[in-house]
Amino acid sequence: MQAPVVTFLSDYGLADEFVGICHGVIARICPQARVIDITHGVARHDIRAGALIMRDALAYVPLGVHLAVVDPGVGSSRGAVALRAADGRVLVGPDNGLLSPAAELAGGVAEAVDLAESPFCLQPVSATFHGRDVFAPVAAHLASGAPLAQAGAALDLERLVALELPGPRREDGTLIAHAVHVDRYGNVQLDVAHDQLDGSGLMLGCQVDLALGSGESHRARYVRTFAEVASDGLLVYEDASRKLAVAVRHGDAASLLGLAVDDELRIRPA
Amino acid sequence: MQAPVVTFLSDYGLADEFVGICHGVIARICPQARVIDITHGVARHDIRAGALIMRDALAYVPLGVHLAVVDPGVGSSRGAVALRAADGRVLVGPDNGLLSPAAELAGGVAEAVDLAESPFCLQPVSATFHGRDVFAPVAAHLASGAPLAQAGAALDLERLVALELPGPRREDGTLIAHAVHVDRYGNVQLDVAHDQLDGSGLMLGCQVDLALGSGESHRARYVRTFAEVASDGLLVYEDASRKLAVAVRHGDAASLLGLAVDDELRIRPA
Amino acid sequence: MQAPVVTFLSDYGLADEFVGICHGVIARICPQARVIDITHGVARHDIRAGALIMRDALAYVPLGVHLAVVDPGVGSSRGAVALRAADGRVLVGPDNGLLSPAAELAGGVAEAVDLAESPFCLQPVSATFHGRDVFAPVAAHLASGAPLAQAGAALDLERLVALELPGPRREDGTLIAHAVHVDRYGNVQLDVAHDQLDGSGLMLGCQVDLALGSGESHRARYVRTFAEVASDGLLVYEDASRKLAVAVRHGDAASLLGLAVDDELRIRPA
Repeated sequence: MQAPVVTFLSDYGLADEFVGICHGVIARICPQARVIDITHGVARHDIRAGALIMRDALAYVPLGVHLAVVDPGVGSSRGAVALRAADGRVLVGPDNGLLSPAAELAGGVAEAVDLAESPFCLQPVSATFHGRDVFAPVAAHLASGAPLAQAGAALDLERLVALELPGPRREDGTLIAHAVHVDRYGNVQLDVAHDQLDGSGLMLGCQVDLALGSGESHRARYVRTFAEVASDGLLVYEDASRKLAVAVRHGDAASLLGLAVDDELRIRPA
Repeated sequence: MQAPVVTFLSDYGLADEFVGICHGVIARICPQARVIDITHGVARHDIRAGALIMRDALAYVPLGVHLAVVDPGVGSSRGAVALRAADGRVLVGPDNGLLSPAAELAGGVAEAVDLAESPFCLQPVSATFHGRDVFAPVAAHLASGAPLAQAGAALDLERLVALELPGPRREDGTLIAHAVHVDRYGNVQLDVAHDQLDGSGLMLGCQVDLALGSGESHRARYVRTFAEVASDGLLVYEDASRKLAVAVRHGDAASLLGLAVDDELRIRPA
Repeated sequence: MQAPVVTFLSDYGLADEFVGICHGVIARICPQARVIDITHGVARHDIRAGALIMRDALAYVPLGVHLAVVDPGVGSSRGAVALRAADGRVLVGPDNGLLSPAAELAGGVAEAVDLAESPFCLQPVSATFHGRDVFAPVAAHLASGAPLAQAGAALDLERLVALELPGPRREDGTLIAHAVHVDRYGNVQLDVAHDQLDGSGLMLGCQVDLALGSGESHRARYVRTFAEVASDGLLVYEDASRKLAVAVRHGDAASLLGLAVDDELRIRPA
């Protein structure tokens, strides 16, 4: 029989012991679990970045219990939840929108419980470290085979917090997109999926005008691979999550363009 | 049968291959061991930070072999030891105080051996990387079930190096504490445990005066959770290790107050 | 039976989810594999640093499948390969020299396949993330026991890309070495192996002149351990990979000397 899998994503970073402590808590409760760290480098308190990474990772990790902690409201009245998705995946984390894109991708939420009074919490529950005291132990018990209903009180699915995501729009042949994520290389992912490009006039190999909110404008090339532009060349491409993205081949597009998450970018064939 | 657990803490960081090499060494000797990384982000050579993290982590990780390497004296005459604590935990690392708070929490040292001539060392032992050549292989052999006495020569428990830790004191109704640890968020842990607050006059919800060594003074609130103060609010709270700590809700208290480890902080009700 | 081992080295860093996604891909294909991360902190696109770390790590990790991804040419015509070395190790990665020092240490390449059309790739193969779509799935299938010949088309061993490494030379009693790697402490590894020191006139304990390309010169001591010099002392020593290296005991030699990879350093007894 396969070992149960727990995936783990957070904004805890690896400089401190927070992630290691959660691993320890899981191993004490479910020693046979295999824990796969998706990343702990989500920017502090950036719920949306965590939610998108979690959603896009789902197709590449085994079915299991998926623990996520990006939790600026820890200690406040925000909910703590465990969800069973239609495809059988179990998601555990704060009810602040972090889990909602992943749950949607997994077919929607079939069952949800509120962890506020979960019998699986470590006591006393601290005010600041629910990863250790609430989410990791709940994830471990569920990985051990405990039914979701034992983890907490049934929750009305309508009351779960959904994440608001920007979407692209079109104006006079210009595609108006937004930056949704910047990776460590300065590559900027936009809120445009591959199939939203139809009718944009963008064709592989063509030159593209990128107009920023500041009025500044840049010329880029729409290509399939980084190798198709010069070393300092600006490119627009479909990234590994099949989203439109902007990059500099051997450089940092976010810095070059001064782009941050949520910034608008107007794109049209040059 | 459960896989044996080895926990691992160091100041090696993750930018280099030091941690990965130690994992490899352990896997060659004890392939069935499960290694849990507590953290490798301890500040370089900061024995005390490593010792406190190790001690506070112990309650949350499975019983096993607990490997710790923060070793500014590597290659000098500092000892290398493996200890069996009263509760059955085995601690492995340099004899520089790094293991002493954890050993104390685990009920004290029941048996100790000197690893200087350990038959478990990888030969030749390098002058600079005892994590790889001494501590990891010893930890792996002990995780495999080798008796402690096989790892080295018996050591007089009286001769083990103990860590000197600051302690709080009280003067005329003022609690005089010291910064013992600063985490990545700039939250500052003090040397005051929850039960040392009795008689301090601090009550949940009250305003508190924080006087620094510089003479500067700040007003904070003593609360249970971050959410109880404004976004840039300064708070005093019991942290997840049940120690008194100072934080800024969405900011960096260490920077704001200019606090570094060992700095004194005078605390009294406002 | 032992779990198969996959070691994993890359320049992906841990700030993003790239490493976690590859772990997920491996776990889906070969759930029983144990993955050991050597490091993901190789400097971006630094093929040589990755190749040397990989080679020097080999002796300390279990025999298995050794996955390495430092891949500035991803999406271009560079090859993707899996190699079986004479000692039984299997190496998987881009054919850009990254694997060649490790393969040589492992006794040379006995068999090689081209992964361009590998049936093990995840489809569609993205243009930018071959770690996820090519290398991790191939490594996982090979760890599961698939024969190398199933992973791709047989490749002429003569056509594999070899890494060019600098070598030391001697001029009038001066040893002319080059910096090959700088670690996080600023310790600088040179291209001089222990057995290349014969005839250099260097003797343990002696003073050494280090002349830089700039004409600047520094005095160091050739010693066995850091503890043999003063706190800010400059030392030359044999590092844990048995290479000659330059360090400052409690400081950063690369900064002090202004040394970067490939810089020349002229060494002679003072």
